[in-house]
Amino acid sequence: MTLLAFPLIFCCYSTLESPTATDVRSPCPGLNTLANHGYLPRSGKNLSIPMMLQAALDGFNVGSDSIIQAAKFGLLSGDAPTTLDLDALRLHNLIEHDASISRQDFALGDNLHFNETIFSTLANANPGVDYYNATSAAQVQHDRLAISLATNPNITNTPKEFLLRTRESALYLSIMGNPVTGGGAEGVRHYLASISMLTGDFNNRFVQIFFREERMPIEEGWRRSNITITAETMNDMEGIIIDNSDWTPTQLCEDLVLGPTLTI
Amino acid sequence: MTLLAFPLIFCCYSTLESPTATDVRSPCPGLNTLANHGYLPRSGKNLSIPMMLQAALDGFNVGSDSIIQAAKFGLLSGDAPTTLDLDALRLHNLIEHDASISRQDFALGDNLHFNETIFSTLANANPGVDYYNATSAAQVQHDRLAISLATNPNITNTPKEFLLRTRESALYLSIMGNPVTGGGAEGVRHYLASISMLTGDFNNRFVQIFFREERMPIEEGWRRSNITITAETMNDMEGIIIDNSDWTPTQLCEDLVLGPTLTI
Repeated sequence: MTLLAFPLIFCCYSTLESPTATDVRSPCPGLNTLANHGYLPRSGKNLSIPMMLQAALDGFNVGSDSIIQAAKFGLLSGDAPTTLDLDALRLHNLIEHDASISRQDFALGDNLHFNETIFSTLANANPGVDYYNATSAAQVQHDRLAISLATNPNITNTPKEFLLRTRESALYLSIMGNPVTGGGAEGVRHYLASISMLTGDFNNRFVQIFFREERMPIEEGWRRSNITITAETMNDMEGIIIDNSDWTPTQLCEDLVLGPTLTI
Repeated sequence: MTLLAFPLIFCCYSTLESPTATDVRSPCPGLNTLANHGYLPRSGKNLSIPMMLQAALDGFNVGSDSIIQAAKFGLLSGDAPTTLDLDALRLHNLIEHDASISRQDFALGDNLHFNETIFSTLANANPGVDYYNATSAAQVQHDRLAISLATNPNITNTPKEFLLRTRESALYLSIMGNPVTGGGAEGVRHYLASISMLTGDFNNRFVQIFFREERMPIEEGWRRSNITITAETMNDMEGIIIDNSDWTPTQLCEDLVLGPTLTI
């Protein structure tokens, strides 16, 4: 079974390659992973909305309805009419936001690249078990925001950022764990058992590889979700995150970013 | 000269046709005019950003830099990844806004179709002369806002709306008058004189036809601008409008409209 299954499994994922010096990447580990595996052009440049939607579906089984507004907003990051470059998504407060789980706040440093210190909050979450879930994701959002509030006097923290951060949490739980519960153990255990690949590593390790290395942890046992991840499948998970985040806004709304040099 | 000039002039503008019952139109007289003349698909449906930018250039010599952010935002009006339908642009507070010069406020009635009562403020502006200019446009913006403030307790009036309204004023002055000064008399007089079509009707009549009938007043003597209308060419005009509008915000910012059923 194992011998037969392996070629079948590896046949279906695009090849991982590290970005070259001229390739560009974004503040989003999901988009970066899709580019690193070739679901998006490895250059990270001139990406259209349909290209991003198709890549998310092919690579992660993420349906367009859960990311299409972000993709459309992304066009405002540059001057091209219908495409964007991944590095342009660093534009602060367009989609990129403070209190990220993997990037430093814009006002405090590098808001584009992965930051291990920032990530330690998520890396160390849900101690004692080998998975993250919606409750632990809520705690991570709370703790990361508390750090930003304490250290960043220029923080932007409106309902927009809160909903973006919640959607991002639901996405990493769904993509790297169980799209229905967000938890890792039950869903992934069941799935790996069903394909005789029960290894003992579950979604916390997958999530960590995803953020730190911006790749699909295929060799470690991760598989693309069998069901399409949509706004609807993430609804319950997002409800748990919202209920457990103890969130309050710092501002009720914010200036509108319309481009690299235009904010109103 | 006149006999020779006429076929030459009419050769270069697309044919005007009234929209059919299944064609859709927007709250924007510029886009509607482009569709009525066939620069955009007359259906008003499935319009891409490049189609809108090309139509504005071909029909009005409006450069993409002055409208591209609005075009990108327009994609959020519907579910399609790369296109929009003109009628979807009625979505309140995406681009459509209160205190319009030609449409009723959303909370008070029909925010999609031309409204003669609303338009009377602009129609009667700059009394005693036959043109509108940046100063009269500022007065119109002030007066229309005063009416909305007095009658619409749900008005949205942030810097976003003010800059949208100012850009719209600069566009009608530039497209229907003189792209450099915004005034009608000098620029249009000079231009019409240069092609032996001095008729005595200047940009107030052009502007009125443009709003009321959503067509290019070609028979009345209007011609597409010789120079490309850009954010830069409108800069001085917008400065005059801003300086003379006596504007103050009702709110400093607003909820963010992300789609027909999604506002955060």
